[in-house]
Amino acid sequence: MTITQESVSLEDAQRVIAAGQAKADEIGSPSNVAVVDAGGNLVSHIRMDHAWVGSVDISMNKAVTARAFYIATKDLAENAQPGEQFYGIQNSNHARVMIFAGGIPLRQDGQVVGAVGVSGGSGEQDQTVAEAAAATF
Amino acid sequence: MTITQESVSLEDAQRVIAAGQAKADEIGSPSNVAVVDAGGNLVSHIRMDHAWVGSVDISMNKAVTARAFYIATKDLAENAQPGEQFYGIQNSNHARVMIFAGGIPLRQDGQVVGAVGVSGGSGEQDQTVAEAAAATF
Amino acid sequence: MTITQESVSLEDAQRVIAAGQAKADEIGSPSNVAVVDAGGNLVSHIRMDHAWVGSVDISMNKAVTARAFYIATKDLAENAQPGEQFYGIQNSNHARVMIFAGGIPLRQDGQVVGAVGVSGGSGEQDQTVAEAAAATF
Amino acid sequence: MTITQESVSLEDAQRVIAAGQAKADEIGSPSNVAVVDAGGNLVSHIRMDHAWVGSVDISMNKAVTARAFYIATKDLAENAQPGEQFYGIQNSNHARVMIFAGGIPLRQDGQVVGAVGVSGGSGEQDQTVAEAAAATF
Repeated sequence: MTITQESVSLEDAQRVIAAGQAKADEIGSPSNVAVVDAGGNLVSHIRMDHAWVGSVDISMNKAVTARAFYIATKDLAENAQPGEQFYGIQNSNHARVMIFAGGIPLRQDGQVVGAVGVSGGSGEQDQTVAEAAAATF
Repeated sequence: MTITQESVSLEDAQRVIAAGQAKADEIGSPSNVAVVDAGGNLVSHIRMDHAWVGSVDISMNKAVTARAFYIATKDLAENAQPGEQFYGIQNSNHARVMIFAGGIPLRQDGQVVGAVGVSGGSGEQDQTVAEAAAATF
Repeated sequence: MTITQESVSLEDAQRVIAAGQAKADEIGSPSNVAVVDAGGNLVSHIRMDHAWVGSVDISMNKAVTARAFYIATKDLAENAQPGEQFYGIQNSNHARVMIFAGGIPLRQDGQVVGAVGVSGGSGEQDQTVAEAAAATF
Repeated sequence: MTITQESVSLEDAQRVIAAGQAKADEIGSPSNVAVVDAGGNLVSHIRMDHAWVGSVDISMNKAVTARAFYIATKDLAENAQPGEQFYGIQNSNHARVMIFAGGIPLRQDGQVVGAVGVSGGSGEQDQTVAEAAAATF
């Protein structure tokens, strides 16, 4: 018996990304926005003009992280501080685990079918953009 | 005296990618399409539904390669064969150099301002999609 | 519509590096000094006689980091501590993100056009050398 | 009884690089030029304006290779072709071995004390620049 897995399509990803871009424009925080599918593999990415180059990788990894652990990276962050139960998790998975705000799972009927990751501003800005992006899903 | 460098914008990249996607649909070759800017940094990427997951990385690296050496990866391929002048170049740059068809520089007034990389089909298909993408720039 | 980007030339980079070298000599801190361009790609590097070999890479990565995030690595360091908004950023970008003092963006008319990175001494020494280097730009 | 090892100084490296730059200008081949010391560690590097970005890494690795095996990379290339005695050597040393022209050992009294690596043009151009650079040592 195989498993049936729902997953974001390219069309889904582009709608989510466009919503993130609109919010980023609105709050003046040029961002990288990335969406991964149910397998944790990249579906689409944009870097807005003048967004940080170093955030290309971070946006993708926030999405990977949110998908991999079924959790917003903001929430994972709390558990990954020194002394907490997941301290050190950021060194796993070939350093693809990001433990600060901006990554959010995309759910359908309660099931995680992908994730969005945003990077380019402060933690608060990235979270705001990611929430707007995820809300369109 | 600084150097002035033109570079692709997100709008440019999305137009190039959309043209690649249309051609890929037309020839029935689900593709990854990536665009990098003048500095070789990713601007945007799409993976079409059912396109190879292993080609996410390859599409980006074809674009990086075309940008880094001002050359279509198809042409670099000829120089990178055993006995040729650049044999072994594929081992440089932390294995980000791709030496098969599908990467094409984007030029403006003769200057390289970015590049597009396509991966997902045969060498011929990837090249066809990349040429259609680059032609819109 | 492409984006126009100013970037440091080799002549700029060599002037910045020479100023760093002079300051390093003055304070007795043999240093590595590296300059990257607007795309984050290396323009020039020196390792002064008897400077740490392990700092070749660090000097380059401090410059890459300052360029990638438009910020002095010293300031990024504060945001990358446990409990802060960018804790864990040092694991991104294939470990090329350096979060201690010595990397400074190079700006022209308010725009980041490159960066300098210094490594070889204490954090205070590296910062002093980097500031002297950046001041000549 | 320790071993005494002569090695290039920063001043040596800069003289070698300047000679390479002059030759590269003369033949119209914007180049990356790198010098490593007796330990195979980078001493200095330049990327001339408009030289290939992908050649930063290659110039350094050609120097590393020439130093590591006491041989010009052009000569190593012949031995690294399919069927030859060193075929596959390019996969060793974390892919830092370059097997095409442009890397030359720097010798003093018959002893290898460093190496120069050049990348940015054709194999013939890189070799011409590297020979001019090494000749000043």
